Amino acid sequence: MPNTTITAPLGFLAAGVKAGIKPWDKPDVALLVCERPAAAAAVFTTNQVVAAPVIYDRSILKGGRGKLEAVVVNSGNANACTGVRGIRDARRMADLAGEATHCPADLVLVSSTGVIGRPLPMARIEHGIIDAASALGNSAEHGESFVRGIMTTDTRMKTAFATVKIGRATVKIAGCIKGAGMLAPRMATMLGYITTDAAISPALLHAALTDIADVTFNSITIDGHTSTNDTVAVLASGLAGHPTINARGAAFARFAAALKDICYSLGEQVVRDGEGATKLVRVIITGAASAADAKLAARAIAESPLAKAALHGGDPNWGRFTSAAGYSGAKCNFDRMKCAIGKSLVIFRNGQPTGAAVDKVAKLMKSDTVDVTVDLGVGKASTTMLTCDLSEEYVTINADYTT
Amino acid sequence: MPNTTITAPLGFLAAGVKAGIKPWDKPDVALLVCERPAAAAAVFTTNQVVAAPVIYDRSILKGGRGKLEAVVVNSGNANACTGVRGIRDARRMADLAGEATHCPADLVLVSSTGVIGRPLPMARIEHGIIDAASALGNSAEHGESFVRGIMTTDTRMKTAFATVKIGRATVKIAGCIKGAGMLAPRMATMLGYITTDAAISPALLHAALTDIADVTFNSITIDGHTSTNDTVAVLASGLAGHPTINARGAAFARFAAALKDICYSLGEQVVRDGEGATKLVRVIITGAASAADAKLAARAIAESPLAKAALHGGDPNWGRFTSAAGYSGAKCNFDRMKCAIGKSLVIFRNGQPTGAAVDKVAKLMKSDTVDVTVDLGVGKASTTMLTCDLSEEYVTINADYTT
Repeated sequence: MPNTTITAPLGFLAAGVKAGIKPWDKPDVALLVCERPAAAAAVFTTNQVVAAPVIYDRSILKGGRGKLEAVVVNSGNANACTGVRGIRDARRMADLAGEATHCPADLVLVSSTGVIGRPLPMARIEHGIIDAASALGNSAEHGESFVRGIMTTDTRMKTAFATVKIGRATVKIAGCIKGAGMLAPRMATMLGYITTDAAISPALLHAALTDIADVTFNSITIDGHTSTNDTVAVLASGLAGHPTINARGAAFARFAAALKDICYSLGEQVVRDGEGATKLVRVIITGAASAADAKLAARAIAESPLAKAALHGGDPNWGRFTSAAGYSGAKCNFDRMKCAIGKSLVIFRNGQPTGAAVDKVAKLMKSDTVDVTVDLGVGKASTTMLTCDLSEEYVTINADYTT
Repeated sequence: MPNTTITAPLGFLAAGVKAGIKPWDKPDVALLVCERPAAAAAVFTTNQVVAAPVIYDRSILKGGRGKLEAVVVNSGNANACTGVRGIRDARRMADLAGEATHCPADLVLVSSTGVIGRPLPMARIEHGIIDAASALGNSAEHGESFVRGIMTTDTRMKTAFATVKIGRATVKIAGCIKGAGMLAPRMATMLGYITTDAAISPALLHAALTDIADVTFNSITIDGHTSTNDTVAVLASGLAGHPTINARGAAFARFAAALKDICYSLGEQVVRDGEGATKLVRVIITGAASAADAKLAARAIAESPLAKAALHGGDPNWGRFTSAAGYSGAKCNFDRMKCAIGKSLVIFRNGQPTGAAVDKVAKLMKSDTVDVTVDLGVGKASTTMLTCDLSEEYVTINADYTT
């Protein structure tokens, strides 16, 4: 099998090791290194309560050079709400990773994920970083060990891989992601890392990532609780052997399309592996007055515990979808609203039930991927948001983690 | 025992009967009648997807006379998303109740609560209204039968009673409410009815109710899903024997304070009886830039499934509270934020954990009433929102009602 992990694109080495941060015996320190300074872009949580590593990362990327040479991650502890000590610890992680991999500390991205409000066990982390640096390699096993090192409540590895022709070069793009609840629950936030050997300017890479994040990562929700640590970073080694993409054009469009597919796939895998999730739900809003309105309505449905519990049970209780759109704040024309389940089973149209058979609706809602479409009957804007169902297991997972 | 139900204030008769609308053998048609046109005020759902009875009620109260003589309610079917037939059915309920109680149909408030999207079984409802009219009485049993008739997933009757001296008269105020989830789940929305024999102008009654609803009913949340049917109405018979309250002043203040206590008590009882709830949680926001910001932060915490699951398990995972405030959209000064559990146990201050003992936090979170205070560190505005925990039972209740 060819390597399709984050070490597949030319120029990348990775490792994941056990450092004893998690209470169970699993890898919890991960390191990704590019053999030369990679063009880099990253997007972070919009939460005003921000974890120390995110504060550090923003400061090094603000320099504007858009270059990274290494990424160091620990799982098991989020280093959030940890005050000045947290900031010092995040910087220390960068220093250690820089020393161990012979690169400047301000080219090291730092991430943490896990419980909020507890100081990092720095002695263990120091050991872990040194171990990881000596374990670096570019095989598929090395790529997978990195993914295992960043996981928390995730039940499976989530990765994506694509190739795209640019000139005569075959550019590889590989990504991995972790996340199953948006925060501290059994220690989970969303961290994603994408490597590519494309040659692209940092500015264009940043533009592509922010556009794409809006319709992929920012269009998924498991429980509506935005984490303090969310981070997605792309590192481009530039070793694929094509002229650097410096302007928008055909090459940029092909690269961005492949990157979008990777991001969409990673986001979908996160939702399918949501805490307690048993199915993927696509909430599709059409007929909205604006894109913002479409997002409001989609989010209200995707985050309603009532709608999600009905989706869990396969209960054809579609009134929960239309009523959630109604309170979302998005403009609705009740007399022109429409609701459909699956690809095309319309159950509500022009403010009236269509009389569609309830057992058909129930059957569609019991499948492992459910489409819920609500047309607001106002304009032409639309959006799609991915979410999962709400199960008893979600509550069980989150009712007593830290004790 | 003196009568403390909605038939206690002078001038009110009530009844609740079984009409076969609910699938189980319980009362489902309720009737409240005032022997003279009562000064009346009502507040309704802000959902844009509005149930037919609410559309009807708004139209009769828009007349501006602010008078009601009867209230007719059915439980088991919300008459929402039922198109023109729903509007016709709501009007027909008012006609029938008016005929049966000898009052004009435009003085009859109509409410429905239950499953969305199904036409009302009008033959059963007609029988129920006629039965209820012939069963009317002013005893405590009659008052209680009304409450039973409006209940759905409620596990207990929720009522409140107060007296207030106005001049030489002792004014009685009595209220009842139903609601355990905000919508269709096992058929539940919030309906509340308050009777009083106070003499007060409709305009002042409306002013009092809207002010009070904002800090009572509009400051509770079980699952964040605003219903299509929410209604709270106050009917004042004016029979207590004091001069009519026509202006703001000492008498109005005393009456409004008593009405507020009733509304607060009813709201708190709704939350305590929330679907699957095992405890009451008071989310207290202080130090906010504005009242609107305080509400945003309070709602984010009170509606976060992560925060609510931690509260269910008594897990001292306070990072879920501060992080929810952080993504709420309310302005936060992270370096001055504070978080406390219970009356005064501060666990986070000035952006740093205080080192408060985790077992003390856990103990406070396991009690049946939990205070969660977050100071945003910005300004002086504050608010309190009541909510409950999120349990596995909530999901079980809502995963398969309609099938």
